[in-house]
Amino acid sequence: MTSSLHPSPPSRPAPLHARLGQTLRHRILDGQYAPASRLPSERELIADFGLSRITVRKALDDLQQEGLITTVHGKGRFVAAPKAFQDLRELRGLAEALAPQGRQLRNRLLGAWIGPAPEGIAQRLGLAPGAAVGTIRRLRMLDGLPLSVETSHFPAAIAEALLQQDLAGRDVFRLLEDALGLALGQAELAIEATAADAELADALGLAAGAPLLRIERLTHDAQGRPIDFEHLHYRSDGFQIRLQIPRKAHAA
Amino acid sequence: MTSSLHPSPPSRPAPLHARLGQTLRHRILDGQYAPASRLPSERELIADFGLSRITVRKALDDLQQEGLITTVHGKGRFVAAPKAFQDLRELRGLAEALAPQGRQLRNRLLGAWIGPAPEGIAQRLGLAPGAAVGTIRRLRMLDGLPLSVETSHFPAAIAEALLQQDLAGRDVFRLLEDALGLALGQAELAIEATAADAELADALGLAAGAPLLRIERLTHDAQGRPIDFEHLHYRSDGFQIRLQIPRKAHAA
Repeated sequence: MTSSLHPSPPSRPAPLHARLGQTLRHRILDGQYAPASRLPSERELIADFGLSRITVRKALDDLQQEGLITTVHGKGRFVAAPKAFQDLRELRGLAEALAPQGRQLRNRLLGAWIGPAPEGIAQRLGLAPGAAVGTIRRLRMLDGLPLSVETSHFPAAIAEALLQQDLAGRDVFRLLEDALGLALGQAELAIEATAADAELADALGLAAGAPLLRIERLTHDAQGRPIDFEHLHYRSDGFQIRLQIPRKAHAA
Repeated sequence: MTSSLHPSPPSRPAPLHARLGQTLRHRILDGQYAPASRLPSERELIADFGLSRITVRKALDDLQQEGLITTVHGKGRFVAAPKAFQDLRELRGLAEALAPQGRQLRNRLLGAWIGPAPEGIAQRLGLAPGAAVGTIRRLRMLDGLPLSVETSHFPAAIAEALLQQDLAGRDVFRLLEDALGLALGQAELAIEATAADAELADALGLAAGAPLLRIERLTHDAQGRPIDFEHLHYRSDGFQIRLQIPRKAHAA
């Protein structure tokens, strides 16, 4: 085993990009730049500090690497809000999960269509191959910035009833329960990482290939019938799952 | 609501890369190319089929996109094995979790060192800032291919005892229990996606920036003392987390 220590800090003055980074860091941490607010543009920083574009960009890249700022393509750089999280001990819609964190969730309907179910989707929903399935795709925005794209498949009658409801403001789970009168049972989840394809990247304001957290979720009603099969893709800088797990005794 | 159908398949003959892809797909699905076996090299495929490099590469890229093959940088392309998964209803080491799936896990020690704890790590382990902490970093290989890099921090005495044990063959959890006589309690997990930095990419045989599943796990002993603070980084094509969640009644 070796012992290792962090090297002692250099005594040279810090380079320009590091000094700009330090100034911006202080403004973020002391709240002068508020969470989820837009940072001054590169052009404004160049003018304000009299620095080159390359120096400004290096300082911003460092802050992004630290997780202090986030880029939304086509919109600019923003002060990162604390990462939203969802506790998985019980099944909740995202708005239900985030409300206690004081976070505001709004949804934008990206598309809705009804058509014959592809085999994989029919099978998970317990339908005959080719049976009519309704698909609803929504962009979920947290405090005004894109957080996730959710693509949900339902038996056609359920999808049609949901499309009469407030999909912009409410979780699907709550609509299924409150508006459609369905009792929800348990859900099976598979969680993995994936790279954003062009369509997801565009919706989420990311470069193609950016890492996403992907959740596949099959939700049953209280009688055990599958009613909602979803693929949820989250920006990796905006969201984490948290849970607690007990250790059970193992066989010796 | 719009209705949409998949367009009907074209009647033109499929392009060359699609026909090569179909041939290779059949060989993978009928077992002629076994799971986790190395595919013929690009050079061999070019020679065997009399096709250009660009055509061969396009066919292989398509198969990789489908998840049928996987690339390990510096080693070549392999038939993808079924994705390993871990059920999170109870706390298990990875080898414990994968053994029932008939999967073979081996570990390679990448590094071990003892030094003063950085503030964030000391705090999670309930130690004074600067207290001695031991860090053990292992590469976990599933059926011979890299799956994850695990970086684990322990109070120094526990790390020193672990380094006398079979870290190549056994889970840390089992060593803590069986060899060190510690009873494990519960763990807190945070799960997210991240992009591989140069060091992780190199260890896992990925390009830098590839998506990884990242788990931060703090494990306590049966008395509630934190004893093991870890960061686990999994290749996204090799692993998923599965779990079941009940729906509880919500407040109206």
